[in-house]
Amino acid sequence: MSTHAVCPGSFDPVTMGHVNIIERATQLFEQVTVLVTANPNKPSGLFSVEERKALIREALKDHENIRVEHWSGLLVEYTQNNGIDTIVKGLRSSLDYDYELPMAQMNRKLAGIDTVFLMTDPKYGYISSTLCKEVTKYGGDVSDMLPDAVNRAMQEKLR
Amino acid sequence: MSTHAVCPGSFDPVTMGHVNIIERATQLFEQVTVLVTANPNKPSGLFSVEERKALIREALKDHENIRVEHWSGLLVEYTQNNGIDTIVKGLRSSLDYDYELPMAQMNRKLAGIDTVFLMTDPKYGYISSTLCKEVTKYGGDVSDMLPDAVNRAMQEKLR
Amino acid sequence: MSTHAVCPGSFDPVTMGHVNIIERATQLFEQVTVLVTANPNKPSGLFSVEERKALIREALKDHENIRVEHWSGLLVEYTQNNGIDTIVKGLRSSLDYDYELPMAQMNRKLAGIDTVFLMTDPKYGYISSTLCKEVTKYGGDVSDMLPDAVNRAMQEKLR
Amino acid sequence: MSTHAVCPGSFDPVTMGHVNIIERATQLFEQVTVLVTANPNKPSGLFSVEERKALIREALKDHENIRVEHWSGLLVEYTQNNGIDTIVKGLRSSLDYDYELPMAQMNRKLAGIDTVFLMTDPKYGYISSTLCKEVTKYGGDVSDMLPDAVNRAMQEKLR
Amino acid sequence: MSTHAVCPGSFDPVTMGHVNIIERATQLFEQVTVLVTANPNKPSGLFSVEERKALIREALKDHENIRVEHWSGLLVEYTQNNGIDTIVKGLRSSLDYDYELPMAQMNRKLAGIDTVFLMTDPKYGYISSTLCKEVTKYGGDVSDMLPDAVNRAMQEKLR
Amino acid sequence: MSTHAVCPGSFDPVTMGHVNIIERATQLFEQVTVLVTANPNKPSGLFSVEERKALIREALKDHENIRVEHWSGLLVEYTQNNGIDTIVKGLRSSLDYDYELPMAQMNRKLAGIDTVFLMTDPKYGYISSTLCKEVTKYGGDVSDMLPDAVNRAMQEKLR
Repeated sequence: MSTHAVCPGSFDPVTMGHVNIIERATQLFEQVTVLVTANPNKPSGLFSVEERKALIREALKDHENIRVEHWSGLLVEYTQNNGIDTIVKGLRSSLDYDYELPMAQMNRKLAGIDTVFLMTDPKYGYISSTLCKEVTKYGGDVSDMLPDAVNRAMQEKLR
Repeated sequence: MSTHAVCPGSFDPVTMGHVNIIERATQLFEQVTVLVTANPNKPSGLFSVEERKALIREALKDHENIRVEHWSGLLVEYTQNNGIDTIVKGLRSSLDYDYELPMAQMNRKLAGIDTVFLMTDPKYGYISSTLCKEVTKYGGDVSDMLPDAVNRAMQEKLR
Repeated sequence: MSTHAVCPGSFDPVTMGHVNIIERATQLFEQVTVLVTANPNKPSGLFSVEERKALIREALKDHENIRVEHWSGLLVEYTQNNGIDTIVKGLRSSLDYDYELPMAQMNRKLAGIDTVFLMTDPKYGYISSTLCKEVTKYGGDVSDMLPDAVNRAMQEKLR
Repeated sequence: MSTHAVCPGSFDPVTMGHVNIIERATQLFEQVTVLVTANPNKPSGLFSVEERKALIREALKDHENIRVEHWSGLLVEYTQNNGIDTIVKGLRSSLDYDYELPMAQMNRKLAGIDTVFLMTDPKYGYISSTLCKEVTKYGGDVSDMLPDAVNRAMQEKLR
Repeated sequence: MSTHAVCPGSFDPVTMGHVNIIERATQLFEQVTVLVTANPNKPSGLFSVEERKALIREALKDHENIRVEHWSGLLVEYTQNNGIDTIVKGLRSSLDYDYELPMAQMNRKLAGIDTVFLMTDPKYGYISSTLCKEVTKYGGDVSDMLPDAVNRAMQEKLR
Repeated sequence: MSTHAVCPGSFDPVTMGHVNIIERATQLFEQVTVLVTANPNKPSGLFSVEERKALIREALKDHENIRVEHWSGLLVEYTQNNGIDTIVKGLRSSLDYDYELPMAQMNRKLAGIDTVFLMTDPKYGYISSTLCKEVTKYGGDVSDMLPDAVNRAMQEKLR
């Protein structure tokens, strides 16, 4: 049976919606790897790969069975090299479903690895990294939607 | 971490789509209970609760970590009484997503239990018990979509 | 290449939305059979099978390449017995898509027959037989949404 | 400009999701009529029309600009007879959107009346009267999802 | 109760679909502000912010209770500074629903302001500024889908 | 009746999903033109327009009634100039439906030409040119999802 799952994403930056999915994943699996899927040598986005990882670690520091890594290759290559048997993703809407379905089918085809989907908690369903950045940039308060350290870091970057 | 999952459904009767989801659940969890959610004292549907259970057992007889039970009460009461920590459901379409979401949110609210969703294998995505019964009734061949014993039992009932 | 298509439906009764799809089908195929899928020996719905057929014939009387029939068996049995190579259906919404997809996949599987979908004309997108009956029953005017003879017949039945 | 809106529904019984939509409607319109669309002479559902109305009145008793009525005819006949210029509906999902769209288009066509949609508050998005009844019947606690009086009334009816 | 609504958008340029939603908003609210959400100092798109505003004013010149403004900051900052109590948006499809939902939830969270959604008139449901620009650029005639002045201005820009 | 259809797309590059739709189109129409909608003078994408056309021709070389062309103008201008009476598109999901609907309605409005939709075969439903390129770039094997020559050409380009 499955004991090691990966939660992949760009996490630019991690939101309370991500944190909620990752914490629920730790209830289902012995070990959870949060994987920042970005290339540190080709910077893009608001936070660097190292910053994203540090913010995730800070937000989830109370959980012992979580590792935070990055990867710039094919996701299934990472899962095969690291003994990971399951991919975990959050779904916020039927739109997310339609976007995630092809990738999940592709990963099963490529490497026989399954993706399990968790429904985003309704109180975080409208949160995305993009929307939080947009609102912060224009001076809005999204402190409820982000871990404290993320909120502070985002304000420093964007204001 | 989670070790015992339930796959609830009416299973009237079990299809290859169900079998595929249940088998994938056995890769994720130590123990899987397939739960026929119907009341044996109020017969409805094509197969009796006992017949449905027997057909599921037959279809999945090669798996040691599967139990087949029935329940006519609240799903979360069953999960709480039986040490089950996760509900597993298959999603065939974004329509399934919209129907399953409220129940999943309700179950988390009622008992703190999470539902994990697996995307139905594309080759079974168009299969439902209802459609298989309809086609069999009119003489169509759905032998690819049903376990052998189910196909035989359905033909006996419907033709 | 395809020359004979079928437009199946319950047509209880035919609406301007149906008429629009059927007329567009006649531009695509040499011969179009409008097939009332209902059993004349088990009456259900508002109009009898014969009444439905007569109303469709009246609404489409200016088209020479249209036949109107009924069938109570498996659709693909009809298409195979009658040399029909294509099924035509209208789609009003992404919801219709999700409902029609399994049947279309099933029919390809059962008999190798393809279903082509036409997008309902926006001005008829909100029309359904059910909604027209509901509104007529309570005295609303749906004369724009129904062929004239259908509108008159429905008022006689429902008022 | 619009000053009198109607919130139609079967309200069998009213939930916190309905209450939230109705309260938000009172911020938008001078007068709001909550309309139980059911026929008191053809009882169906769990609560009688009079019970449903009493429960709505109790739940919304702090709002002065709310009236509670019932109607068994065509909605637009009621709005025309009562000087109502807008229909208000809640949307919980893209599925609700697809179901409500035809009725909204029909009502604009029949009587020129517009329907405004409010997005259900995420914390009530998974609540429906049907699901609350189902859970209560089997002994689950839905007290967070229902006004107090409704919760008590439902337990009396169903346990 | 609500008397002042805002219709925000990029309006590059305004289409008959937008005009229809704005006109319906004037039936619901005493005052409607059409807000071009773009920064005049960072030109992007086909029309400048001033051109967009002029085209909207021309298209809606017969309505006394409409103001046309622009804003490059957070929408809820504008609504709070200008005594606006409601946001109005059109929905063309369930896809629009899924895209608009997070922003509507965010705005309620940030400033307590509600968004009301109107279903786009079916005859304008397939119109977008982007598609009209694309078609005009390649010589297609979209004069039915745009106010006259917009159609002329777009042909001058794109041909 | 319709005898000449067009399958438009960017085909960068053609996948087994495209091939399946085009082959089914040849069952429905006497003549099928596969139209690469891109401008050879403004190169973009992975393959040049000529390369895309050559790969399509190779993949479909066994079909006599298929022509492969390119076009950089308005689709309906091409259909009108070439005696084409029908556009054929594949639908992989309800998301595709929502994206394709406006273009289909626009084309009917502009030139009276209809679009027929075929449901993508479930076993190709998760395949897209973009996803195949992404996976190939990172070393994954997508040989089942692409015609042989396309797979070889893509590996040469991307590795």
